[in-house]
Amino acid sequence: MKNIAASIAMSTLAATGVEAQEERRRVAPPAVYDVAPGLGHFTDDVLFGEVWERAELKPRDRSLVTVSAIVSTGKTAQIGGHVRRALDNGVKSEEIGELITQLAFYTGWPNAISAVAEVKEVFDERNIAPVVSSDAARIELEATAEAARTATVNTTVAPTAAALADLTNRVLFGELWQRPDLSARDRSLITMAALIAVGQPEQLPFHANRAMDNGLSNTEASEVITHVAFYAGWPRAMSAVPVLKRVFEARAD
Amino acid sequence: MKNIAASIAMSTLAATGVEAQEERRRVAPPAVYDVAPGLGHFTDDVLFGEVWERAELKPRDRSLVTVSAIVSTGKTAQIGGHVRRALDNGVKSEEIGELITQLAFYTGWPNAISAVAEVKEVFDERNIAPVVSSDAARIELEATAEAARTATVNTTVAPTAAALADLTNRVLFGELWQRPDLSARDRSLITMAALIAVGQPEQLPFHANRAMDNGLSNTEASEVITHVAFYAGWPRAMSAVPVLKRVFEARAD
Amino acid sequence: MKNIAASIAMSTLAATGVEAQEERRRVAPPAVYDVAPGLGHFTDDVLFGEVWERAELKPRDRSLVTVSAIVSTGKTAQIGGHVRRALDNGVKSEEIGELITQLAFYTGWPNAISAVAEVKEVFDERNIAPVVSSDAARIELEATAEAARTATVNTTVAPTAAALADLTNRVLFGELWQRPDLSARDRSLITMAALIAVGQPEQLPFHANRAMDNGLSNTEASEVITHVAFYAGWPRAMSAVPVLKRVFEARAD
Repeated sequence: MKNIAASIAMSTLAATGVEAQEERRRVAPPAVYDVAPGLGHFTDDVLFGEVWERAELKPRDRSLVTVSAIVSTGKTAQIGGHVRRALDNGVKSEEIGELITQLAFYTGWPNAISAVAEVKEVFDERNIAPVVSSDAARIELEATAEAARTATVNTTVAPTAAALADLTNRVLFGELWQRPDLSARDRSLITMAALIAVGQPEQLPFHANRAMDNGLSNTEASEVITHVAFYAGWPRAMSAVPVLKRVFEARAD
Repeated sequence: MKNIAASIAMSTLAATGVEAQEERRRVAPPAVYDVAPGLGHFTDDVLFGEVWERAELKPRDRSLVTVSAIVSTGKTAQIGGHVRRALDNGVKSEEIGELITQLAFYTGWPNAISAVAEVKEVFDERNIAPVVSSDAARIELEATAEAARTATVNTTVAPTAAALADLTNRVLFGELWQRPDLSARDRSLITMAALIAVGQPEQLPFHANRAMDNGLSNTEASEVITHVAFYAGWPRAMSAVPVLKRVFEARAD
Repeated sequence: MKNIAASIAMSTLAATGVEAQEERRRVAPPAVYDVAPGLGHFTDDVLFGEVWERAELKPRDRSLVTVSAIVSTGKTAQIGGHVRRALDNGVKSEEIGELITQLAFYTGWPNAISAVAEVKEVFDERNIAPVVSSDAARIELEATAEAARTATVNTTVAPTAAALADLTNRVLFGELWQRPDLSARDRSLITMAALIAVGQPEQLPFHANRAMDNGLSNTEASEVITHVAFYAGWPRAMSAVPVLKRVFEARAD
């Protein structure tokens, strides 16, 4: 990959001088350089200097993926900063609310409730009005795919855990996935990032296919894995690679 | 499943008026409705309005399962609230102490030590006396099952990690599992919930069988998975379903 | 295994009297005994009285393994205490910085950034100077092994996630693993502990082999699993046993 960071740094230099460049390059707080100078270097030169600048995924998508990975893995201390960045990158407050709601189901209530407290502080600080549930039309799920999904749940889950199957069909797919304030594509993108981050790639194919049916490209899907590598660790990303490979192959057929 | 929440709401309405109904329905703090109104709805109408009300698992068991899932996944911020609810639902202080001790071994010391600090605050607030180690008789493990378990550990673990095998036999099964202040059935129930919550379903069959040998019904075991879905996320629950299915099938033979 | 704790207690008793013995035995804070007396017993008599005293792994290595497990699993509240112990056990401040940098890549940036804040407090409290990036020579990776690793990444990762493959080759192995302030053996030891702790044993063989190529013995590798059992829970350790068994067998051939 080309070093996008270097060219950005160069153009920033030309435009606004050395100090702005230095400031731009320092996302890592000073304590990072005092305790782990290598981490400071990788944060500023690789993660923010290169990865966040890659064109393969838009900043708004990177923010959705990052906030999803952080909320999913319960990294409360990092939520505020990344929600601020997400708002700056064009994610709307109601989309953040829906992201949290989605992740309550996909990674557990405690993560979502803890995220709410952090996000509330950011909303208050920025005078963002309370989110109101949309009265827009529900997002319709594609009928054939939905029938197949229901049949699978009824066959594989219901005989062992009838209530879980019922809640999956009635609440997750009958309500949550149809909520209008987050696009189908973004809801699937968030879910993909969460599954990779928490180490559950078994359930990635369903959601990756869904995301790609709703417009996520192969390039973007790959880049999600690369981005999550930084926020949930390389091993989680590496375990997702063969799973996504099979999704790509099946869709190419 | 029937909507138990609706009928409860109806009867509460008849008995105590609209305000009490509103109050009853609002477990989610106001910030949840301000940031993620969907999460408020699902918390109050589905999780507390419906799932916690299902008769398939008693409130005391739901509390044991919830506290276990939360402690296991290190969700410190939620421990205090759920320990208060557990005490209200009839879990004794010494049982909470044993739950934490059990989870130190099954999900790591840091979770247990962090849980202690949260629980201590609740005990102080409620003037609960320090827990004293019971001098009741140790719980005897069933001799044949225990001999088989020891043999398996000695064959599969000892040649690679002798100390781990020794500690498993001598400390976990020679001491921890025999401690008297938590019933054998509850100790297994807690361990099942922890294994599902942390995504280690490989080791679920042993503990599910143990729980069922000690009185947990199929219905209750299924409901544990459903309940944990809300506290550790749907994917963890879904991964546990086929594992529990095989346990049910093996026991039916 | 012999009960080393008992003999230590005996000799301490002889040397410094009953009070010193009591003090020595009590690593667990009083709240642990008030809430979960069993946990107090296991902490003081088994974890610190026996496991930390076992000669199979040096105290310095146990500290590296412990801090790695705790940082990897995001147990922020326990970082300060164990970093103090690590410094007392001979781990240098720059090694702690490198440990955190390593774990940023292997378990995600949020864990590393949260660890920095905790470690900074310890460094300030002990007047430890800011860590400076070493100008020592980079650690050279063994050329044949590195060529094989690169080929594997290019074949298995690059076709699905080109950027991830590039970053793995260029940044992880081209920079991170060559950084001089942590020995090759210690870097691999830390990575092993992290993979076991976060439940990713699939990627353990590569790093276990690397650690053993750089001097880690079979006995030490086994003991890492036993030690991590206490800090990330028994199931994570048990899942690592068959993986390490295969590594031992392959190396014996």
